[in-house]
Amino acid sequence: MSVRNFNIAIAGATGAVGQEIVAVLERRGFPVGECRLLASSRSAGKTMRFRDQEVTVQELSASAFKDIDIAFFSAGATRSREFAPAALESGALVVDNSSAFRMDPEVPLIIPEVNAEQMGDSMLIANPNCCAAILAVAIWPLHQKATLKRVVVSTYQSASGAGAQAMEELKDQVKAFAAGEEPKTEIFPYPIAFNVFSHNSAVAENGFNDEENKLVQEVQKIFSTPELEIVPTCIRVPVLRAHSEAVLMDFAETLSASEAREILASAPGVTLVDDVEGGHFPMPIEAAGELDVHVGRLRDAGSSGRSVALFISGDQLLKGAAWNAVQIAETWIRKA
Amino acid sequence: MSVRNFNIAIAGATGAVGQEIVAVLERRGFPVGECRLLASSRSAGKTMRFRDQEVTVQELSASAFKDIDIAFFSAGATRSREFAPAALESGALVVDNSSAFRMDPEVPLIIPEVNAEQMGDSMLIANPNCCAAILAVAIWPLHQKATLKRVVVSTYQSASGAGAQAMEELKDQVKAFAAGEEPKTEIFPYPIAFNVFSHNSAVAENGFNDEENKLVQEVQKIFSTPELEIVPTCIRVPVLRAHSEAVLMDFAETLSASEAREILASAPGVTLVDDVEGGHFPMPIEAAGELDVHVGRLRDAGSSGRSVALFISGDQLLKGAAWNAVQIAETWIRKA
Repeated sequence: MSVRNFNIAIAGATGAVGQEIVAVLERRGFPVGECRLLASSRSAGKTMRFRDQEVTVQELSASAFKDIDIAFFSAGATRSREFAPAALESGALVVDNSSAFRMDPEVPLIIPEVNAEQMGDSMLIANPNCCAAILAVAIWPLHQKATLKRVVVSTYQSASGAGAQAMEELKDQVKAFAAGEEPKTEIFPYPIAFNVFSHNSAVAENGFNDEENKLVQEVQKIFSTPELEIVPTCIRVPVLRAHSEAVLMDFAETLSASEAREILASAPGVTLVDDVEGGHFPMPIEAAGELDVHVGRLRDAGSSGRSVALFISGDQLLKGAAWNAVQIAETWIRKA
Repeated sequence: MSVRNFNIAIAGATGAVGQEIVAVLERRGFPVGECRLLASSRSAGKTMRFRDQEVTVQELSASAFKDIDIAFFSAGATRSREFAPAALESGALVVDNSSAFRMDPEVPLIIPEVNAEQMGDSMLIANPNCCAAILAVAIWPLHQKATLKRVVVSTYQSASGAGAQAMEELKDQVKAFAAGEEPKTEIFPYPIAFNVFSHNSAVAENGFNDEENKLVQEVQKIFSTPELEIVPTCIRVPVLRAHSEAVLMDFAETLSASEAREILASAPGVTLVDDVEGGHFPMPIEAAGELDVHVGRLRDAGSSGRSVALFISGDQLLKGAAWNAVQIAETWIRKA
C-alpha cells in the first residue's frame, strides 16, 4: 500500500455530495496532499474547512486539474462531460458521481464490495446512483449464494437525494406548518412535508421513471447480469437523509431467510439490524451518517423456499454517493 | 329502496374512525333517525355534533343498543367481542371495524365493490383492515379480468392509521423540530417525524408482522382466493392521513398496463390519477378526504405481458375504515 499523499480535486465541492466527500476524506484519514475545492463561479471565493485548513473554493475550469491525482466529480452530468476529459488529461483518476458515464460500456461502474476487480486500469470510474448502490451492496452477497432471478423494490427516498436545497425545502415546509403558515413548494413539484410522491424524474417510454430505469440498468451492469429482472417503484418521502428500500428477491436456487441473515451478518458494507423481539429494524434516522447499509426484516416470502424479503436503510449521501466514491479512490490507491 | 330512517349507534364515537363515521353519515345523507354516540366512561358526557344536533356521548354498555337498527363498532377488538353480542341481540346490524371477527369463517368480510353478495343474511359484518381495503378495491377489477397469481405490496402508512393520538404525535414532533426542541416519542416506538419504520405491530412466527399478515389473510378471504400469494411490507411514513401502496401484480393471463388503465378508469371506488406527461400520480395529500382510492403509475413490469405495477393512495380513515363501514350499511338498507 502506498504511503504517499495524493492531490485531490472535488468538482461540485459546495453541493450536498461534495461537502460529504470532503467530510469522508477527513473521517477516513485519506492520504490527502492538496485538497482543491472546485465549484461554479457563483460559489468560487467561498471558503470551506478541510482538516485544520481553510480552503478557498476555486472556479471549476479545464485548467483546474493541474497536478491533481484524484478528481471527484459531483457537479451534475453536464459538467462531468465538459470537464472530466481535462482532469483525465492531467493524469488524474476521475471518480464521477453523475450519470454521465455510468452506462458507457467502456467505463467501469463500481461498488467496491461488489465488483472492484472491474476497475481494471481505467482512469475514469463511474459511481452508481444512490438507490442502486444501497440495494446492490445488500443483495450481492445473496446473489452470489443463490443467483437472483427477480428483484421487486419499492423505495422510500429522502429529500436530500434531490440536493441540499430540497432538504431545506422540507425543513421550511415543516416550519411553515408549525407556524400555521402556507408552505412554499419550489424545488419539488409537490409538497414533500406530510406527503409521499412518485420520484420527480421524467417517466420514460417504458412507463418507468428515469430514477427507476437507472436503478435497473445500473444494478444489471454492476452485477454483470443483463438478464436480471428488477421491478422498481421510486417514491419520495419526507425524510431528511438516508434512503430506505423494501425488497423482495426471487432466487434460482433455494435460500432461506435464516441463511440470508447469516450471510448478511458478515457481509462487507452491511450492518444487520434485525431485532425481531425488540421490534428494531432499519430506519433512516439511524442509517444517516453511517458508512454501512442497514439491513433487516428478513423473512421467507411464500413457500417456494427461493424467495426472501428484507428492508434496507442506507445513507444515500454516503454509500449512495460520497463514501462509495472515496471507497473507489481507496481501492485505487491500494493498487497505485 | 327503503325510505324509513334508521337508528344508529357508534361504539368508539370519539376515536379517529368513530368521528369519521359520524362525518360520513352526514356527508352521504344517510337516513339516520337517532344517532347514539357511545364511548368509554372516560369520554362519556362529552358532546359531539351530528347534523344540527348536539349529541351527548354515552357510556358503551350492553344495554346501550336498545332500538338500534345499525351499530358501528370502532372501539378495538376487545370491546367488539364484549359488546357486539348485545347489539346483535337487540336486533341491530353490526358493522365491526375491529379485527375481532374478520377471519371468523361465519362472518362475512365485505368490501361492497368486491363481494357485497357475500353479506347474505348475516347481521354481523366485518370491515377490513385499512391496507387490505385500499389494495383490494384497486386490484379486484384487474383480478376479474386476468386472475391474480401473486401480489407484492409495499405500504407507506400514515400516522393516523395508529389513531388520533399518533397523528398528534407527528404534529408535535414536527413542531418540536421547528422550535429547535427535542421531540417526544410516546405513542410510536420510534420518532415518526423525518423517519420511516417497519409497522409497529408484533412480528409473527412467519416473519411477517401482524399488519402484514392481516393484509394477506383478509385480501385472500375477500377475494375467495386462499391460494393467492401476497407478499407485503408494511411501513409507517410521516404522513398525517391516507395510506399509499406500491404494488406489483403477476397475473395468470395476459394483461397490459394500458388494458389495466382502461379497466380502472371505470372501476367503482377508483379514481385514476395517472398523468404521465404532467408527472401527476396518486399522493396522500390529495387522496385524504376522498371516498375513492386514487390509482396511477400503471406500467408493464417485465416482458411476460402478465405483470403490471401501480401506485395507490387512499384515505385509510375513509375507504380503509369509516366509508367502507357506512357503505356496508348502505348496501344493507338497500336490501332491508
